[in-house]
Amino acid sequence: MENLFFNPTKVIFGRGCVGEYDFSAHGKRCLIVCGGKSARLSGALDDVRNALGKFNIAFSVFDRVEQNPTVETCHAAGEAAREQKAEFIVAVGGGSPLDASKAAAYFAANVHLTPETLYNGECRAKPLPIVAIPTTAGTGSEVTQYAVLTNHRISNKQTLKSPLLFPVTALLDAEYTVTLPPHIANATAVDALSHAIEGYFSKSATTVSDALAEKAMFMIGRALPSLAEGRLDAALRERLLVGSMLGGMVISVTGTSFVHSFGYPLTYYENIPHGEANAYFLPDLLNYAMRVSENRVNRTLRLCGVKTCDEFFELIRRVCPCDKLFEREDAMKYARVGENGASTRRGIYEPTHDDCYDMLRKYIK
Amino acid sequence: MENLFFNPTKVIFGRGCVGEYDFSAHGKRCLIVCGGKSARLSGALDDVRNALGKFNIAFSVFDRVEQNPTVETCHAAGEAAREQKAEFIVAVGGGSPLDASKAAAYFAANVHLTPETLYNGECRAKPLPIVAIPTTAGTGSEVTQYAVLTNHRISNKQTLKSPLLFPVTALLDAEYTVTLPPHIANATAVDALSHAIEGYFSKSATTVSDALAEKAMFMIGRALPSLAEGRLDAALRERLLVGSMLGGMVISVTGTSFVHSFGYPLTYYENIPHGEANAYFLPDLLNYAMRVSENRVNRTLRLCGVKTCDEFFELIRRVCPCDKLFEREDAMKYARVGENGASTRRGIYEPTHDDCYDMLRKYIK
Repeated sequence: MENLFFNPTKVIFGRGCVGEYDFSAHGKRCLIVCGGKSARLSGALDDVRNALGKFNIAFSVFDRVEQNPTVETCHAAGEAAREQKAEFIVAVGGGSPLDASKAAAYFAANVHLTPETLYNGECRAKPLPIVAIPTTAGTGSEVTQYAVLTNHRISNKQTLKSPLLFPVTALLDAEYTVTLPPHIANATAVDALSHAIEGYFSKSATTVSDALAEKAMFMIGRALPSLAEGRLDAALRERLLVGSMLGGMVISVTGTSFVHSFGYPLTYYENIPHGEANAYFLPDLLNYAMRVSENRVNRTLRLCGVKTCDEFFELIRRVCPCDKLFEREDAMKYARVGENGASTRRGIYEPTHDDCYDMLRKYIK
Repeated sequence: MENLFFNPTKVIFGRGCVGEYDFSAHGKRCLIVCGGKSARLSGALDDVRNALGKFNIAFSVFDRVEQNPTVETCHAAGEAAREQKAEFIVAVGGGSPLDASKAAAYFAANVHLTPETLYNGECRAKPLPIVAIPTTAGTGSEVTQYAVLTNHRISNKQTLKSPLLFPVTALLDAEYTVTLPPHIANATAVDALSHAIEGYFSKSATTVSDALAEKAMFMIGRALPSLAEGRLDAALRERLLVGSMLGGMVISVTGTSFVHSFGYPLTYYENIPHGEANAYFLPDLLNYAMRVSENRVNRTLRLCGVKTCDEFFELIRRVCPCDKLFEREDAMKYARVGENGASTRRGIYEPTHDDCYDMLRKYIK
């Protein structure tokens, strides 16, 4: 028996959609969860405040979500939600605030959970409903059941996963991505593409995830040359935002694979942004997949608008240079962490021990 | 603001999935809703009984759903659910039992609703949850929020629609389609293809519905030659069942269009099975769409494995002959009903008054 698809998030799209959305359907009190900058800079936070005000919804703002948020931050956000007697959460930002809001929703509803017990503790009460508003086109978190958090207890990122964590609604307005610095726009686009490709080469891929992955690869892949040249217009931003949402729907079925497992230590130890960290290993996925499904690789290349794996590699490098090199000892540590990652063996090609070290050897100083 | 996607049904697939499914998650008492024949013949009803027995779930069977079920039948099924104190419904069969179960779930939870007030009455209480098990590969009803019922008050089929009507789970086992008579297998496949194509040419099409429609057209379209020759193996049956589910997901976003509006009177007055009734008009859709989006038509043809609209027409006719001819007066009545159908103007090409009559003129004795 195979789970073909399950994704209960309602996805709404369009300029001004936050202002048109009926937040009152979720209650009279809420907590806004965001980071310190992009929610304000993008204009999304103002739009949310205005929309909530229109419905006389009482709200407070928790804006202390850092990049790669820790379990402790999420716990603090959960306490803020309880203090506010919030009936729902509005999450605004990139992957960090969106993921943090999910753990916060868990904590808010389950007083007995602590940062120590989050991953092992039982979620007795349903987490608060979340309305997710992405301000980057990459995470896909607005339509997934995952929260990827930094857990210093295991010195890595760790994924919290539950069907209860799907946001109830995702509101996609590409206007909010206009203020993204170009290197973040690029890194997040590669993250989104990586979701689609990892899902497409997953053992858990289904007809439904394939349909969505193919569309996502087409939408994001064809935008890469423009990204590489720093040319982004409104239509392209919309394309990337929808593409990244599709990538999220894909991994909601399949999960990610080794690209993410290997990217996490680069983010944890080297502070390389998540999307860029994936860019270090995404071309490897296609090269390895050639060994087991040439057809699928060729379809992927065609959808992305390139002819060969080498061309794909060049294109990714133009979008994310991946020019950081590591000490041998560190590189070997990252290979070890990657090899033991939870998602490493989820792809139709399972990297061997040697593959895992080969992937890092390229990046030794 | 555009609704890109909302479909909360969990879709499970695979041989024996009914036996592996945890029905106890939905309660301790249930009503099985099915027709008189196919649920038994296919083996699905036995599988459901055994599965429910395993969890000690008390159940009764309402097996009086006729083809093209009336609102009255659904009301009776709703009363049966109340008598049984059912906490959920298991719907087994083709589109008729699946659609009937949705209205039954409405009636069961809302005592004040009657056959007279169903379409206008308020649904105060949430309808019972439905586990849907299709035994044909066509309806897609297992993943939609629609119940298409025969309403003699308006002498036509009429659609009940609510986001509360999505089944909680769809269980897809292609084994249940083995006992389908070939002409029903063919007609239902054309129905499924029609969902994908109507959605693809809908004004409400979104990137998500397009992704699903393209996959559905590929899966069903490429199976048509085998259907025409009466050759169906297990792999093809699975392909058709998943394709028809995808078609359902498509129309859950877009609704249907004029093909369905024109098919309904042929079913109501001429007793032509629903899928075959669609086959009378599906080729017209592509011909008309040529006037507004040649690109989309060409993509559709390519996905279906044919080169021209004429080839598509021939292929559909080989699957469903559509050889019934009507009295002039009747044909004109069907054109009028079609022209006034609720879905007639939902496509990117809106048929003119003349188009509506032209579509029927071909079928005059």
